[in-house]
Amino acid sequence: MLEALKQQVLEANLELPKHNLVTFTWGNVSGIDREQGLVVIKPSGVPYEDLKAEHMVVVDLEGRVVEGDLRPSSDTPTHVVLYRSFPEIGGIVHTHSPWGTSWAQAGRALPAYGTTHSDYFYGEIPVTRPMTKAEIEGDYERETGNVIVERFKNLDPNQIPGVLVHAHAPFVWGKDAHNAVHNAVVLEEVAKIAGRMLALNPEAAPMDQVLLDRHYLRKHGVNAYYGQN
Amino acid sequence: MLEALKQQVLEANLELPKHNLVTFTWGNVSGIDREQGLVVIKPSGVPYEDLKAEHMVVVDLEGRVVEGDLRPSSDTPTHVVLYRSFPEIGGIVHTHSPWGTSWAQAGRALPAYGTTHSDYFYGEIPVTRPMTKAEIEGDYERETGNVIVERFKNLDPNQIPGVLVHAHAPFVWGKDAHNAVHNAVVLEEVAKIAGRMLALNPEAAPMDQVLLDRHYLRKHGVNAYYGQN
Amino acid sequence: MLEALKQQVLEANLELPKHNLVTFTWGNVSGIDREQGLVVIKPSGVPYEDLKAEHMVVVDLEGRVVEGDLRPSSDTPTHVVLYRSFPEIGGIVHTHSPWGTSWAQAGRALPAYGTTHSDYFYGEIPVTRPMTKAEIEGDYERETGNVIVERFKNLDPNQIPGVLVHAHAPFVWGKDAHNAVHNAVVLEEVAKIAGRMLALNPEAAPMDQVLLDRHYLRKHGVNAYYGQN
Amino acid sequence: MLEALKQQVLEANLELPKHNLVTFTWGNVSGIDREQGLVVIKPSGVPYEDLKAEHMVVVDLEGRVVEGDLRPSSDTPTHVVLYRSFPEIGGIVHTHSPWGTSWAQAGRALPAYGTTHSDYFYGEIPVTRPMTKAEIEGDYERETGNVIVERFKNLDPNQIPGVLVHAHAPFVWGKDAHNAVHNAVVLEEVAKIAGRMLALNPEAAPMDQVLLDRHYLRKHGVNAYYGQN
Repeated sequence: MLEALKQQVLEANLELPKHNLVTFTWGNVSGIDREQGLVVIKPSGVPYEDLKAEHMVVVDLEGRVVEGDLRPSSDTPTHVVLYRSFPEIGGIVHTHSPWGTSWAQAGRALPAYGTTHSDYFYGEIPVTRPMTKAEIEGDYERETGNVIVERFKNLDPNQIPGVLVHAHAPFVWGKDAHNAVHNAVVLEEVAKIAGRMLALNPEAAPMDQVLLDRHYLRKHGVNAYYGQN
Repeated sequence: MLEALKQQVLEANLELPKHNLVTFTWGNVSGIDREQGLVVIKPSGVPYEDLKAEHMVVVDLEGRVVEGDLRPSSDTPTHVVLYRSFPEIGGIVHTHSPWGTSWAQAGRALPAYGTTHSDYFYGEIPVTRPMTKAEIEGDYERETGNVIVERFKNLDPNQIPGVLVHAHAPFVWGKDAHNAVHNAVVLEEVAKIAGRMLALNPEAAPMDQVLLDRHYLRKHGVNAYYGQN
Repeated sequence: MLEALKQQVLEANLELPKHNLVTFTWGNVSGIDREQGLVVIKPSGVPYEDLKAEHMVVVDLEGRVVEGDLRPSSDTPTHVVLYRSFPEIGGIVHTHSPWGTSWAQAGRALPAYGTTHSDYFYGEIPVTRPMTKAEIEGDYERETGNVIVERFKNLDPNQIPGVLVHAHAPFVWGKDAHNAVHNAVVLEEVAKIAGRMLALNPEAAPMDQVLLDRHYLRKHGVNAYYGQN
Repeated sequence: MLEALKQQVLEANLELPKHNLVTFTWGNVSGIDREQGLVVIKPSGVPYEDLKAEHMVVVDLEGRVVEGDLRPSSDTPTHVVLYRSFPEIGGIVHTHSPWGTSWAQAGRALPAYGTTHSDYFYGEIPVTRPMTKAEIEGDYERETGNVIVERFKNLDPNQIPGVLVHAHAPFVWGKDAHNAVHNAVVLEEVAKIAGRMLALNPEAAPMDQVLLDRHYLRKHGVNAYYGQN
């Protein structure tokens, strides 16, 4: 069942330690088969070095396990909410990558300060509001998805493929599992560059909107001219 | 004698350089056999690349060598005090891991600023008071243990498995030697994330207590639901 | 055609990930054959691990492809402007190396604070002015080259082999492609050293001019006495 | 001639890249045969990966080449001054290790803030005064040695085995070449820990003198009890 997707999600999970985005098991990647409405996700708490394709868990869009012997990632309800609310995304990654987590803990959105950022994110990477007591004590992981969706009310998740969850860490997505990991690497890198930049110039302003447009659009959309396609 | 424990303590020691927690020989791990009241600990000043299980030293709960040709770690008296005072811990690690050491030298306790922290430590990681002249010039390593125990008078060492020793470095523990190293990795990671976060937001407040409870308790205790167990 | 130069440019490109100057495909190196007036440059968006000499693209000094099946780097027009304006340089490298990019985003020129800097750069590494709307919306990559050239009106590009492009990242050059990468490594290293230094001493002044002269000139020019030549 | 010393100096040089203390050829190690009054030192500008024992250059205590086909390190006159002035040291290392260089450029001495420091350096690591125009334009490398010696007028180089040369970088020494590299690793590590600590607590005071004594003396001198000897 969904063998190709399981293999892709496995490989995307294995990219996390390779790109130094995770310590121990602090991360998970999922991918979705939109036609079948099924999500493949990493099992909870399994070390990356032991992961195999057959460990991947298949869940439906309510988060119920459809196939798999292991318990799915405890963050599965967050993933499912995002897949339901952002219909064009194909993969999601959650990590506690250190620079992104520092920004999330600081409660600061990450503005677009330079072209490295705007090559991938069409504007500021937002931070969610603090969750309420009821949300935290209720269906916490599902509510985490809900506060993300709330934060994107006037934002396009296809153009801003990631968010900082307040006092927690980043969630990042993309057109598939690999692309989500790619965007997670970018988020960590721009969080690092911006963090050091603020030490050099605490009053630095976000980049010019014209430059932001130019860089984002030379890599995305109908007039893109970067790469070989 | 205690061959399985020696092997475990050896492996836990070898995890220290693997996780970049030590430079040269600046670290040591021990484990205890509670039934026999015997502690297995790394010998003093032996490079990690040369360590073998038979080098491990067995001491009793007074710190007296029971078996072993080499001198035990000079920090052995600290370990022994902690084992006597914290009856549920099974392993202890001491390193000069750089971020943890920066916090220890700064004399600042490390508050729980985000979920990465509260997944493992149920609140602030405390810092000990400066030691007195008499303590330093007396039985120094034993007194180091005593100031740690003093600092935990109203704290649960099973829920806060580590401490920053003032002007020195972290001591971390866990249910066995491997778990202690695991917690030492976490301490270093959250010390790094929090250090960078403070540069981004010097007024950042510790995380909400409700969120702290939720994350700690989803991984610990009778209602834990993280992982496969 | 230009097989030796293609091999050299390939190798110089492969040095970028080796020296941790690039994430993904965020960098490109070119080299020029001054006699033929032809530039060899990396293709756009091709991962470093897949790069082969035959992928290198040959362009003329107007940036027109002369040979090659792949599209040249989208930054090709910038390279070409620099080769035309700085007649003694033989190689150019562009990366988003993180420390250099932090300085570029901060909009701060990088002064010579110590001998590590002055061993390679004979003074401050300048930052370009922000580009105008017309420049960004026009022939953007060519205009990027033009603002660099404008910034070097009273500077010698042979003695200051690099620049920080405002809100973007460094461009660095040298006598050939390898030397350009060498200088890019130096820029990243001195950007790191200076960034941390400013945290230690925000009022630090640039180094003494006499010391700057001594170090630059012991490695460059007719009286150089460093190395074996 | 001095084959064992050449081998030792070679190995000590190769430890520099292994410990991430050098970029390119930015470092050199020497060792001395006190009986013969001869120094073995790295040749100038030779990449570490190409270094062999037979490349090592033998110089006398005036810095004159006694044996070797290659030019000795351009810093040879500094090494020679230190060997003449500090009669008990057996090895010297000079690097531009990044944290140490940040402190040197900041013009700040590095106080003993914690036990990691005082395990190896019996007090503050001093910084030299800025050199005069006459010194820089004169016999510069020899004068670099002289300002180091001047700075140690009331200090014991055996207890403080290193210095930060103003606007330049560290020089570190020890009882032999390996021990000098060991101390250079320590200097870089404590420079890093202290730099981050100051960001956490800009008013942090140096450590208590009693604790400094205790840690230094448990590793050095007649009452040392660390390690196996």
